[in-house]
Amino acid sequence: MKRILVDMDGVLADVYSRFFELHEEETGQCLSVKEIAGLLEAEAFPNQRKWVAEPGFFRSVPVMPGSIEGLKLLNDNFRVIVVSLATEFPNSLTDKQLWLHDHFPFIGWQQILFCGDKNIIKADIMIDDHIKNLDHFKGQTIMFSQPHNMLLKNTRHERVNSWTEIEKILLSH
Amino acid sequence: MKRILVDMDGVLADVYSRFFELHEEETGQCLSVKEIAGLLEAEAFPNQRKWVAEPGFFRSVPVMPGSIEGLKLLNDNFRVIVVSLATEFPNSLTDKQLWLHDHFPFIGWQQILFCGDKNIIKADIMIDDHIKNLDHFKGQTIMFSQPHNMLLKNTRHERVNSWTEIEKILLSH
Repeated sequence: MKRILVDMDGVLADVYSRFFELHEEETGQCLSVKEIAGLLEAEAFPNQRKWVAEPGFFRSVPVMPGSIEGLKLLNDNFRVIVVSLATEFPNSLTDKQLWLHDHFPFIGWQQILFCGDKNIIKADIMIDDHIKNLDHFKGQTIMFSQPHNMLLKNTRHERVNSWTEIEKILLSH
Repeated sequence: MKRILVDMDGVLADVYSRFFELHEEETGQCLSVKEIAGLLEAEAFPNQRKWVAEPGFFRSVPVMPGSIEGLKLLNDNFRVIVVSLATEFPNSLTDKQLWLHDHFPFIGWQQILFCGDKNIIKADIMIDDHIKNLDHFKGQTIMFSQPHNMLLKNTRHERVNSWTEIEKILLSH
């Protein structure tokens, strides 16, 4: 069975929905996806690094549409490891795992990994929204569309816009 | 530069000192290493799983003698990754990383990894106290003596009793 690394933020966790919300609450300004296309999260939202460092932030993030059903299907067909580059924000670690248990209870603790560098993990497939992770990965790569990667063209990574598209690529056989 | 995985509990963190202390506090019974040799932590201390699941436990654990100086030397000569099988106890995650920052500030967040299965990490050398981790590792293995592994004989893993012995093996050239 192939091992597949599934990213949390921007793939399972719809962090942008929460960023837009918090930005509007704090500044009164309602940003659009178009306005921040191509910008990294911290460039688009000046307070983003402050928000994600706060205990509790990750418990409040909504689930990406379709991800519960999609990850369940992947979990039946692959050795799924949910991976998050989370050690930059120590306060996020416990919150992130409890959030996973809340929304994806079929993912066991043996399948969860928090690190500061995804390149040291052995796997066959990676689903991620960040080009910095995908570019260094040797196996099959799937890029989940998010505002920061929207303008990237001609990458070797297969772009998907939804969990339905992930299922089509990985489960059509 | 070779990549080396350094375990936390029983290698950097002297969890047994704290277990003995808590066991005596709760039962009045002062256990000796001899009495619990060969038993896994949860077999030796009936409340061990309760203790480690509690928020705050890992902030109170003493540092293994010699480990600060030893890890600093390894960090100058190897790509060190500090790894802990910690996702079984979500409340331990943030505590563990903050403990690392307190005592080993020269280890960056990029060098920390929390997981439920160490076999998916690419590395050349592993220092660990648990035979279940060492047995599955393909590279060079160093077994740090702890009460639960004291009686194991004829393993392929090089046994060390102190951080000075680790330095001798890995840094004598």
